[in-house]
Amino acid sequence: MVEKKGFFITFEGPEGAGKSSQVERLASYLRNKGYECLLTREPGGTSLAEKLRQVVKSHRGPEKVHPETELLLMEAARAQHVRELILPALSAGKTVICDRFFDSTTAYQGGARNLDRSTIDELNMFAAAGRKPDLTFLMDLPPEEGFRRIASRKSEGFDRFENEKIDFHRNVRKAFLELAQAEPERIKIVDAAMDIESISEFIRKSVDESLF
Amino acid sequence: MVEKKGFFITFEGPEGAGKSSQVERLASYLRNKGYECLLTREPGGTSLAEKLRQVVKSHRGPEKVHPETELLLMEAARAQHVRELILPALSAGKTVICDRFFDSTTAYQGGARNLDRSTIDELNMFAAAGRKPDLTFLMDLPPEEGFRRIASRKSEGFDRFENEKIDFHRNVRKAFLELAQAEPERIKIVDAAMDIESISEFIRKSVDESLF
Repeated sequence: MVEKKGFFITFEGPEGAGKSSQVERLASYLRNKGYECLLTREPGGTSLAEKLRQVVKSHRGPEKVHPETELLLMEAARAQHVRELILPALSAGKTVICDRFFDSTTAYQGGARNLDRSTIDELNMFAAAGRKPDLTFLMDLPPEEGFRRIASRKSEGFDRFENEKIDFHRNVRKAFLELAQAEPERIKIVDAAMDIESISEFIRKSVDESLF
Repeated sequence: MVEKKGFFITFEGPEGAGKSSQVERLASYLRNKGYECLLTREPGGTSLAEKLRQVVKSHRGPEKVHPETELLLMEAARAQHVRELILPALSAGKTVICDRFFDSTTAYQGGARNLDRSTIDELNMFAAAGRKPDLTFLMDLPPEEGFRRIASRKSEGFDRFENEKIDFHRNVRKAFLELAQAEPERIKIVDAAMDIESISEFIRKSVDESLF
């Protein structure tokens, strides 16, 4: 569909695993090498998709968000983000670094909410216009450790996903690891319990080997 | 999935065809016969789905809503509406009368925006949890006449769909009529140019014949 010029790198894993720090560090590294980088995130990344992020993450009140609604909202936000921001940036030769992408949908709405996997795969490809990431870093961390980290830095309370029970997050982790096993070329598992500099070094090395 | 107890009746057609008046009139008729009725609409029908209606119909600004985003947002709103409101009402034996349902998605996002028909069919059934309407009234009207009617009653300007060109609305009408030809048992074509009382009479007769 779109000419594959720029590189598309995604970061996956639970809250508290250090994804956003590593996104920033990788961007600095690549910019120093002369690559133009676009940093973005899901759900969100455009004005319209950020509105949907707000709805899906922060909905409160007696009306529960049904799992099918959650899935379709994530995919709606992705369809917009991919067409409005990611594909144009890749076509312009930029390196796009995205904090979460469709593997999160497979892990959260599939692995943890138990929605049908083939439906999710089809929706992921439809929303992404068939464009898979070139490289994905799975920042792997036991849920207990992720919770410990986010609890210490949050003052405004948890969102709908952070509020889920520990078993939900164990299922998310299991689904992420299964994805990485199924696609070892694309998805690199990063031990997010390592110190921040060791993680950056591992990521830089993988990017150099995989992409350049 | 859900026990088929209540009747599920939908109204389709362009803005200006008189759908909401006929929804009200049919509800009065059925209530007088002792049926408990739930009146609702799409996109919307629940607090969360109405938020999505706002996004999809009234989005303004430089960021355009991509057709795939529009489709997934409509289906997200539907998934919520069906599970939160429609299925529970039908299970409780109520007659649900809905102003627009998934045939609108086929006509607008398929017929007029040219998205792939089999993708839309699958998404429609996923969002509707497999529950088709028992009876659908297609209020058929030439787009020019629909425009004339809404122009005379609107003061606050048109939404994203009303602002589309006449060819868009011709394609919507064509797609609706094709749907009615493909499913003549479920979808009844109503000549919306008739007077309001003749239309009500036709609808009441069809409901009596089809459902009771």
